[in-house]
Amino acid sequence: MAGPKFKALPGFRDFLPRDCAVRDYLFDTWRSVARRYGFSEYEVPVLEDTGLYLKKSGGELSGQLFRFEDQGGRDVCLRPEVTASLARLVAQHQRDFPKPLKWFEVGQCFRYEKPQKGRGREFHQFNVDIIGEAGPTADAELIALAIDTMLALGFEAGDFVVRVSDRQAWLGFAREQGIAEDDVPAFLQVIDKLEREKPEVTAEKLAAYQLTTEQVESFIADPEGASEAFATIRDELAARGMAEHIELDLSIVRGLAYYTGVVFEVFDARKSMRAVAGGGRYDTLVATISDGACDLPATGFAMGDYVIRNLIEETPHAELQMAAWLQRNTPACDVFLVVADPTKRPDALGILAELRQAGISTDMPMGAAKINKQFRQAEQSGARFALVIGDELPELTLKVLASRHEESCHVLGLADWLEDRLQQPDGPLLA
Amino acid sequence: MAGPKFKALPGFRDFLPRDCAVRDYLFDTWRSVARRYGFSEYEVPVLEDTGLYLKKSGGELSGQLFRFEDQGGRDVCLRPEVTASLARLVAQHQRDFPKPLKWFEVGQCFRYEKPQKGRGREFHQFNVDIIGEAGPTADAELIALAIDTMLALGFEAGDFVVRVSDRQAWLGFAREQGIAEDDVPAFLQVIDKLEREKPEVTAEKLAAYQLTTEQVESFIADPEGASEAFATIRDELAARGMAEHIELDLSIVRGLAYYTGVVFEVFDARKSMRAVAGGGRYDTLVATISDGACDLPATGFAMGDYVIRNLIEETPHAELQMAAWLQRNTPACDVFLVVADPTKRPDALGILAELRQAGISTDMPMGAAKINKQFRQAEQSGARFALVIGDELPELTLKVLASRHEESCHVLGLADWLEDRLQQPDGPLLA
Repeated sequence: MAGPKFKALPGFRDFLPRDCAVRDYLFDTWRSVARRYGFSEYEVPVLEDTGLYLKKSGGELSGQLFRFEDQGGRDVCLRPEVTASLARLVAQHQRDFPKPLKWFEVGQCFRYEKPQKGRGREFHQFNVDIIGEAGPTADAELIALAIDTMLALGFEAGDFVVRVSDRQAWLGFAREQGIAEDDVPAFLQVIDKLEREKPEVTAEKLAAYQLTTEQVESFIADPEGASEAFATIRDELAARGMAEHIELDLSIVRGLAYYTGVVFEVFDARKSMRAVAGGGRYDTLVATISDGACDLPATGFAMGDYVIRNLIEETPHAELQMAAWLQRNTPACDVFLVVADPTKRPDALGILAELRQAGISTDMPMGAAKINKQFRQAEQSGARFALVIGDELPELTLKVLASRHEESCHVLGLADWLEDRLQQPDGPLLA
Repeated sequence: MAGPKFKALPGFRDFLPRDCAVRDYLFDTWRSVARRYGFSEYEVPVLEDTGLYLKKSGGELSGQLFRFEDQGGRDVCLRPEVTASLARLVAQHQRDFPKPLKWFEVGQCFRYEKPQKGRGREFHQFNVDIIGEAGPTADAELIALAIDTMLALGFEAGDFVVRVSDRQAWLGFAREQGIAEDDVPAFLQVIDKLEREKPEVTAEKLAAYQLTTEQVESFIADPEGASEAFATIRDELAARGMAEHIELDLSIVRGLAYYTGVVFEVFDARKSMRAVAGGGRYDTLVATISDGACDLPATGFAMGDYVIRNLIEETPHAELQMAAWLQRNTPACDVFLVVADPTKRPDALGILAELRQAGISTDMPMGAAKINKQFRQAEQSGARFALVIGDELPELTLKVLASRHEESCHVLGLADWLEDRLQQPDGPLLA
């Protein structure tokens, strides 16, 4: 038999029901933590004016765009991230909202990269931003939210660490070392690549600024006092009982050019150097995007779905929690009707409608079938109960599919009785 | 002040928090009805091989595609609908699942059309399909789900009607009238346009088949017996107590070429001719998409978010229900902490962390602020309670923001007490 002709594009994922449930586990956790923190959800289009993203990123993502001309001759692209769209939205509508805005988004982004483990050409992202507050308490609130997201996903202290840094510290260092202001962005790129670049290449690049690797490393090694913001962030997190999850680490500067102050990354503390989430302050972006029409300080972070999913699957206690969630949330239905007497199909349809109306997830066969086949279908659906409708109507038999235990019940008041029964454990009910 | 430079593309929507909540109202209702019916959620990419959609639709949507060449030279497009992707997915994976598949999807589609009221260049769609069942009981199950979706959205009998038709009836009519098989698709297009086309144009088009408008209209007017499937559908829906919501109406044939049998549309019964949802049987599509590698009968329908939202807003009882949902679901938080004594900020942060940990949506100011300003912020957040933290700590004051009623509480056991309190009505608590 020939294989199917069409497939999903390279780097794009199909979500079969189980994958969709894993996606929902992440989405539900992200949304519930953000709501606990008093954040409101927004959404922006996946297709935007390309200029919006070129303007923002200074070209860093421009090589990775799904970019084209639409039928109206517009230069458009699938969004590679969400922050520029958020800045656009805020510049247009900020007058309608008290500040600070605490907003979050859950959606898909697109980058034309080489697909590999932990990276595709589309990914889902959790974006959390505070706009209109310049002080480090806003950064602390975001870092706390990132920590609580990790805890809500079943991770524990020691599984992860938030490395906090501050571009202002590096700006001070650059000033002291006499690096020209125009050269600072390129200098920060060297710092950003410190851990990944060959030592001799780094040394050569630093020499251009009359610096040695030792000077840079000793600044990173002894950062006390380098970041005023960090002291506030540490105090705010200590008061929340979260100090153990953060550390000051000036080696973090984050790649994108638009960061202006505190930056941070949530790291896998057990295995590699993988960042699970990252972000920071971008106090000039809203003004840049709006050509100065609106000027608001801002800070935010994003978490993608690829790395966090891998990390969950590598961390037994987090994986266990997800598995329990999936077990509760993947069965197609709770109750499956088995029609033992084909002439009772109309009665079964009436019961089906009544149970669904009561909010009980219920299914039944599409037509007449042998009892055994119907029970097999009930098991495949993941239902907990089979409800057998036969000659004894209005008496019915409820079968607990896991234990094969049987109980009698009655059509009268059935929905209420079943709702109750679904709250009880399996096994013979105690009187 | 100059206006912001960038805007969303024409026909694309930003979702500010309130719009996002309306979106969630639809999504939550769609998902909960589908799950009650035992359907499982899947998702497919928004970007697909263009061939997939050209192959399926025979070009009907090809003029409306956001189509381009990606960086790898692939001819790709944003999906104009989801059914072709579903057929691709099913052809690839059907062997891993028992039949019939009962699957649904909630996602975004893209068509380059003239933006107008009730239509954009992107829209959200609820897609529900049953694959692997050829009998009309599957169509009945889908029609029941469409009806229950309308009821769940607050519509009542009389607000809407499901008009059910059957292309097989028209195929029989065409055979009797001697219309050549190759001409049938074009003939069905004439029937599809009957209500919108000028009578003289229709008459001319029908004359090409040696038919008069009267012949066609009398077939539509007296359809009894024309559709075998309809009798089963009516019986199945009558047994579910849903017969009042459907009628046989052969004037419905649906535009797309791939429908093979029963087709139906959910109509606004009060005002215009607007279809809120539509679908039908497409028994040959999976085989077409997979070049015959997989051959499964299928039936499905889709509901978009534009028309249904307008219809809700025009129907007072449906609008009222949505408003109540929004009122419960849009406040940014439930409890807002007012820090009456600035030296108590660390205590307040500890309480904040504890309440959030308990799952209570809680917020507080980013820094020191006058009490009045903090209360204003509490009100703007939509919180029900302000919790005042001051000198009397560990004693606290809870203020019901709507009634200004005050109560005392204590830091010890605060989360439990508040969870309880949030379940109670406003106003002074009875002892």
